[in-house]
This record gives sequence, structure tokens and C-alpha cells, in this order.
Amino acid sequence: MSEENLTKLSDLGEFGLIYELTKDIKPKNDSTIKGIGDDAAVLHYPESKNILVSKDLLIEGVHFDMTFMPLKHLGYKSAIVNFSDMAAMNGKPKQMVVGIAVSSRYTVEALSEIYAGMKKACEIYGVDFVGGDTTSSTHGLHISVTVIGEVEKGKEVYRSGAKPNDLICVSGDLGGAYMGLLILEREKRAFQADPNVQPQLEGNDYILQRQLKPEARTDIVDALSKADILPTSMIDISDGLASEIIHICESSKTGCVVYEEKLPIDQLTFDIAKSFQIVPAIAALNGGEDYELLFTISQSDFEKIKAVEGVEIIGYITEESAGQRLITNDNQSIDIEAQGWDALKKKRNNVDKK
Amino acid sequence: MSEENLTKLSDLGEFGLIYELTKDIKPKNDSTIKGIGDDAAVLHYPESKNILVSKDLLIEGVHFDMTFMPLKHLGYKSAIVNFSDMAAMNGKPKQMVVGIAVSSRYTVEALSEIYAGMKKACEIYGVDFVGGDTTSSTHGLHISVTVIGEVEKGKEVYRSGAKPNDLICVSGDLGGAYMGLLILEREKRAFQADPNVQPQLEGNDYILQRQLKPEARTDIVDALSKADILPTSMIDISDGLASEIIHICESSKTGCVVYEEKLPIDQLTFDIAKSFQIVPAIAALNGGEDYELLFTISQSDFEKIKAVEGVEIIGYITEESAGQRLITNDNQSIDIEAQGWDALKKKRNNVDKK
Repeated sequence: MSEENLTKLSDLGEFGLIYELTKDIKPKNDSTIKGIGDDAAVLHYPESKNILVSKDLLIEGVHFDMTFMPLKHLGYKSAIVNFSDMAAMNGKPKQMVVGIAVSSRYTVEALSEIYAGMKKACEIYGVDFVGGDTTSSTHGLHISVTVIGEVEKGKEVYRSGAKPNDLICVSGDLGGAYMGLLILEREKRAFQADPNVQPQLEGNDYILQRQLKPEARTDIVDALSKADILPTSMIDISDGLASEIIHICESSKTGCVVYEEKLPIDQLTFDIAKSFQIVPAIAALNGGEDYELLFTISQSDFEKIKAVEGVEIIGYITEESAGQRLITNDNQSIDIEAQGWDALKKKRNNVDKK
Repeated sequence: MSEENLTKLSDLGEFGLIYELTKDIKPKNDSTIKGIGDDAAVLHYPESKNILVSKDLLIEGVHFDMTFMPLKHLGYKSAIVNFSDMAAMNGKPKQMVVGIAVSSRYTVEALSEIYAGMKKACEIYGVDFVGGDTTSSTHGLHISVTVIGEVEKGKEVYRSGAKPNDLICVSGDLGGAYMGLLILEREKRAFQADPNVQPQLEGNDYILQRQLKPEARTDIVDALSKADILPTSMIDISDGLASEIIHICESSKTGCVVYEEKLPIDQLTFDIAKSFQIVPAIAALNGGEDYELLFTISQSDFEKIKAVEGVEIIGYITEESAGQRLITNDNQSIDIEAQGWDALKKKRNNVDKK
């Protein structure tokens, strides 16, 4: 589409724009009574369910870089990071409300792409898009997503329930999203240095997808339920394994032992980390944005967890006084330190452990 | 406090900052099972209740002007505009999640002021502050608030239920918030022209409060319930009476007749409008941000509504073909046109009536 055929946001105005972006949205879940179009969405949950609420912000220039983040992927990822919070509570996302603030340099077509990604995520995960707010900003693009989900009453899993001797488990593999980001940033620098350079992305599909189009592990929630396992604690890995295991240990007032050799790392992640001269385990521990699940289970569930595909046991919970320890491949025991992404500090650094 | 004693956001980091801002928050409602501190808040609502969800964004430079908006008031107002959406559905707010994105020019003390205003609103309206996200932005302050509320199952009131001959009612008085804004903008211009000029705000307390510290009319929800009145349709007045009555008529597929002489306008609002050479009825129709309730009731509830204090009957609903009409004080019948605030068009203009 040529530049002059694009539609300015001001051509439609707030109500016209919301109509345009949401006209094809129809709620499907029984728990949604009324979706978009009134002062509030109306929901109803049965007595047997607890309700989950989570909110995440995605800010241009802080959480994403428009130079390499396709708008549709951005919409998809904005939804997924919140769906992942529902999985982290042992629940499923059911409704979503979205706030988008955009500067006037964005067009209706650009916003439609973001919405298309969000709608796709809703379709795949069975979530109803039930409302929101779209407005202008003086600078950049800010996306705020709130997701409402459900969990069987009493089956919600907190960060605080881990007990000494519980097994520490992680789904999928780690560090890939961070390696994908490093590749994209490298190609951006190459392009900035010489706009004739073509981006070198071939062969890196898996880690690029981990960065640009992550998934929420609601399938693991189902698999655990099917295996009759209720985790004792759970969190999703948004800031890196190190940061998240510390959250679990601090909330549960425990220590932990994690084995470097047990960290699940994909071969491509391993190779790319090496090419950047990064120890692969460091990518897995501190990379972030993998949106895998980190959880603990009772030792009595050991046989059951072996039957769940795509889950690794990486260590065990200890008494608080034993601290949070990593056993390296050369059998050293070192402190686990959170070096996750801290948007407020704008650099990777030690997280305040209050 | 002197400038050098203020705390930079980066001194605390994301987790430290969230701890600092939320450490004194304790949930009080039975429907809140788990508040701040995990991947999601956990709620439970009984079978007898429907759940309401609403989200509003407040963007610096679009929805508020930091030069005259005290931070504590900004926090209070951010909560109230969402609480008002709950009232507009005939419900009550119960939980709130907040996303704040701030540039590095804000200090911890500034954010604490915003939070103090939000906490005050929660305390007054019986709402639990159950979670959120705080992050950095490249420019300015963006506040995103999602409120969860409750309404007796089947008692939710939509915009779409008005029927011909229903009476149109409005709570409180209109136009005051807009006059307050005009006073603040006038004094800002005077200050910019000559920084030695002291702001002339005396005697304008009522309209300044309407602009800076609005309230949500949950008391009207209670009063209607006590009077055994279930409105046929309802909306809150955020964009001006004209825009809102058009929303009700379009959603309900009706027309309406509104009488200029019945519009509730406070004497101070009237006088200040005159001083700005604005017809007071225009301030009431198009001013916005009053957060009063506009609702329709069956004619059979006429005797009951007379007993409800602070509610005026301003007209009645007609067939759709009759259009949306204002009967002026000199007995002319003119079209009601929405000229409410449209953040995307950045000027007061006709709203796309799609």
C-alpha cells in the first residue's frame, strides 16, 4: 500500500477507530456476558472457579524496538506475556482488555496490524477480547494489556509454596529469546552502519521466533493436570531463570540447588551464545523473555513428572539458610545472582533483593 | 524536601520500587483472595454476582497537564474515572490494577504521590489495590488503570436498554469540570506570560475540584437501589452530556428530547461560563469530565425518582426516527451534536457517528 493511501488516526477519531479495530470481534467463552461496547465488560464465573487478573505494559524504546519488531508480532507478544502470567498461576486466560496510546505518526493500518496480532493470540488461546481504550500519546507507542483468567478454586499455584526437598522443574528450553534479541540487535547495527547490508538472519528461525513470537505454556498447565500433579510453586520466566528462582525462594523462604548441566538449552541457542562469546548457561540463567514455566513439585510426584514431555528437573529446594546455589559443570557451588532485565535501571544488573 | 534528597527511580530498580510503593497495601474485600505479589491477583466472586471490567488510560500532555495537576490528585482521578465506569453499569468497584510508565525525570517521591492519591481513592470507595506494573518510558507519564467490579447478576445496566417514553435523568450538575479546566488554563497562560503573576483561583473552589478531584457516583447506584429503581440504560458523563445521550440513543436505537432549561448547572459554573462568553448550556452539553451519571427510567418509576436527591429529569426518550433533539429556552428544537473531547483528534469536534 503506498504511503498516501494510509489512513491517519485523526481521520477516524476515537469512536470511529475503535469501531474499525474491533468490529469483527465476537466473544466465545461462557464466562463472557458482554464484551466491547459499553462502559465495562460483564463477566460471570461459576462458584467453582477462582479468577486471575494480571497486567503488563509494553513501552516502545524500553520493551521493544520498532526497527525490528513487526507490528503483528508485537500485538501477539503483548497478549502472550499476559497469558503466560495465567499459566504461571496454573490457570488459563479467558478475557483481555487492551489500552493503546499512539503518537500521530502511527496510521490506522499500523494499529490494525497490532490488533491483528492480538486477535490471533486470542483465537489460538481461546481468549475473548472484551474491551479497551485507544488514545493518542505525545511520543511513541505504549501498550497496556490486562488479562482475566480462571483456575479451579484451590488449584491456583503461588510463588510461595515451595518446600525443602521439592524438585525444581522447567518447561521447554532457555536462553533462546535472548540470543534472538542479540542477533536482531547485531543486524540493526550493521544496517545502521551501512543501509545496503542485507540482514543475516538465515538459519536462526528458532531463536528469532523465541524473541519475536513467544508462546504461553498453557499446554504445560494441561499436561500437569492430566498427570495429576499440582505444583507446590510456579512462576513464568520473563526475566531469566536466576531472577525467577530467587523470587520463588524468597517468597517460599527457602534456598535451592540448581545444576548447570541440567539447564535445558537448545543446540542453536548454545551455538549462537558461543559465537557471541557468552557462556550458554549464562544466557539460560539471565536471558529472559523465554516465557517458560519454572515450578516445584513434591518428590512424591517424581514418577508422574517423568511422563510429562518437555519438562526437565534442574535441581531441588533446600532450607533457606543453605542459600540459592548453582552447581557448575566443574562441580563448583556458586551463589545464584539475578541479573535479569530491569526496565527502570535500563541495564542488566543486580536486582534489589528486598 | 530539597531537590538533592529526592530518590531517583534507578536507585531502587523495578522490584525495589514496587515494594516501596505497595508495602502498606492490604486487601480488604471478601472477593480478593490474593493481591499484589505474584504473577496475577486471585479473586473469587459468588454465583450471585456478575463481574465488571473496565480500563482507561491517562496520558501526560493528552489527558492531563502536569503544570497544574497535583500528582496526588492525578492518582486519585485516575482511579475515579474507572470507578465511574462501574457506577455506569449499576455496579461497584472492588479491585484495581495499575500500570505506570514514567520517564527518568520522575522521582520515587513523585510516584509515591501518585500512588497516595490512588490509595486514597481505594480507601474511600472500598477498592483493593491488587497489582500492577511499573516501568520506564522514554517520554512523560502514562497511567493505565483496570478496575474490576461487581453487580448483582441481572442488575447490570447497559447503554442499550432505553425505550421510547422513558425519562432521561442526570445526577449532580454539569459543566463544572470544564469551567475548572478553563480557569486553570487561563492562569497557566498568565503565568507563562509573566512568572511573577500569582494565579487567580480564589472563589473557584467548586469548579476546580470538579476538574482536579472528581468523584464517582456510586452513591447514586445505592440511592437507586434503595428507591427500587433499575434504570433501563445508563452511562457516565466523561465526554459531555451531548456525546453520552447520543451513545445511549444509538445503542438503544431511539431518539430523545432534552430540555435546555432542565440541564442542572451550578451557579458558579453558570457565572464562569458567562465570563468566558460561553453559553452555560453548551458547557453542560459538551464540557465533559463531570463523571455524573446519565440514565433512563421507565415512566412508571416517576414517583420513585422524585424521592432520590440530586437527580434531575431532563427529557425523555423518543422513537429513533424523531432524532436526538434539544428544546432550547426559546422553544426551538435543534439537533444534539456531540462535540466531546476526542483525544485522537486533539480538538473538540464532531464525533464520527458510525
